[in-house]
Amino acid sequence: MKSPAHRDIQIDALRDAGNVRRADTIAVEEPLEIRLMRDGLPEADDNGGTGRSISITMRTPGNDAELAVGFLHGEGLLRDARDVVDVGFCGPTGNVIRVRARPDLPLDLARLARNFYTTSSCGVCGKASIDAVTANAGTRRIESDLVVRESALRGMPDRLRASQAGFAETGGMHAVGLFTAEGELLASREDVGRHNAMDKLVGAALRAGQLPWKDRVILLSGRASFELVQKAMMAGAPVVAAIGAPSTLAVELAESAGITLVAFLRDAGCNVYCHSHRVYSSRGES
Amino acid sequence: MKSPAHRDIQIDALRDAGNVRRADTIAVEEPLEIRLMRDGLPEADDNGGTGRSISITMRTPGNDAELAVGFLHGEGLLRDARDVVDVGFCGPTGNVIRVRARPDLPLDLARLARNFYTTSSCGVCGKASIDAVTANAGTRRIESDLVVRESALRGMPDRLRASQAGFAETGGMHAVGLFTAEGELLASREDVGRHNAMDKLVGAALRAGQLPWKDRVILLSGRASFELVQKAMMAGAPVVAAIGAPSTLAVELAESAGITLVAFLRDAGCNVYCHSHRVYSSRGES
Repeated sequence: MKSPAHRDIQIDALRDAGNVRRADTIAVEEPLEIRLMRDGLPEADDNGGTGRSISITMRTPGNDAELAVGFLHGEGLLRDARDVVDVGFCGPTGNVIRVRARPDLPLDLARLARNFYTTSSCGVCGKASIDAVTANAGTRRIESDLVVRESALRGMPDRLRASQAGFAETGGMHAVGLFTAEGELLASREDVGRHNAMDKLVGAALRAGQLPWKDRVILLSGRASFELVQKAMMAGAPVVAAIGAPSTLAVELAESAGITLVAFLRDAGCNVYCHSHRVYSSRGES
Repeated sequence: MKSPAHRDIQIDALRDAGNVRRADTIAVEEPLEIRLMRDGLPEADDNGGTGRSISITMRTPGNDAELAVGFLHGEGLLRDARDVVDVGFCGPTGNVIRVRARPDLPLDLARLARNFYTTSSCGVCGKASIDAVTANAGTRRIESDLVVRESALRGMPDRLRASQAGFAETGGMHAVGLFTAEGELLASREDVGRHNAMDKLVGAALRAGQLPWKDRVILLSGRASFELVQKAMMAGAPVVAAIGAPSTLAVELAESAGITLVAFLRDAGCNVYCHSHRVYSSRGES
């Protein structure tokens, strides 16, 4: 049973013009458990063929196979389309999805056992576990000659917004868009969780054999966090732009990974936080 | 070494009036590992007195003891101030914090081992682990005669905004505010993660012996997710208001927990999603 991405409910709308009970559309949020197994290999935590539980995320249903594959890519567990044998739901809820990987996929089960972002038990003061959060930060360096015009960047938010059907319905969903350097929107994904929207976009590209994103610009509808820049880095994106603000760790990671980070991208301008040589502006310094 | 909540960096600001290289202030995002131990009890995962790692969250430094205690309260591990012996940083980074609980605190170590939101291995199709996400939903029912005037609600966003020093500096931080029914702001907390801002507010109240929040209104600067409503429910809040949109699971949890959920709270009005009897509007139906 597949859940829709949004749902109508009855609300009380309190307005100066008068109060009214009416329908309203809200974004669906449901848990998705992502499980991973290697095809044909019975493993310690295989749970009778349903695989090993990797993560539970609160997400908007839809594009769940992309979400699962994109998440696993961001964690460094899947590299390209050939790593994936198939992806399918387990059980009747539509909230548990299993990725079957190729039998010879290298899997660091000890690292899996440690987890992602939670519950580690790895030595005094957890240094190892905090390192794990930032583990991949120094390991990738994006090399790309891509140049994007500032005028192309400025046009992107409106194009992303025009693609956000879920946001238009609910006012409560984030989006991530994939653009050419000329400002053409190639794909976008929505979700209540901005990291899920990114995972869906990455997963779709991985399955279509379109990674790494060497000559693409990624646009985030909200703020740029460490986690989002990390996912973009794993996908090879040379330019990440955000309509909202960046965090320190997002800037530090972009700086060290060679990613151009643009934020507060608006009609009226934008801020470039690092590797600004990829943004071409016809205006000079003021 | 304590990290500040925001930091100045050099950016390229591209504007119609001319491009300029200048300073900009951005919100600090750093990992915090939260560890828990029972005072004086050597336990299986005690790691030489640093306790058991419960969670790693990406947060803005500051009020970290509140964040740790509030997080553990939201997970049902701490109930009131008497449960906490002390809270302190481990090691030199300021990014690992250990809560020492009273020796006789009931701790479900099996549940801890399962985790929160990630990496479970609990049976076919992970039903048990997804249930764990929503585990407490049905177990609390907020009983409160609180009534809040719509006019008091409408005034809250401006008061919260006026308290958001970090947002004013960076444009990149969420906030959660604690209000009386008359609209007076009692406390607020900011963070790059909205769930952290809530944990800090809950932790401060727990340590001051001010929980449950029977006659308080909680205001969220962004959207209302399941997770935020769950934390508010654990703290006993009868009214949760959000400036942004709610999700389906947030509404469902509020409905079942007896919480009045208000969203899209603006100067011009608001929407009430459930238990609207706690919102008094002097206007009639239109």
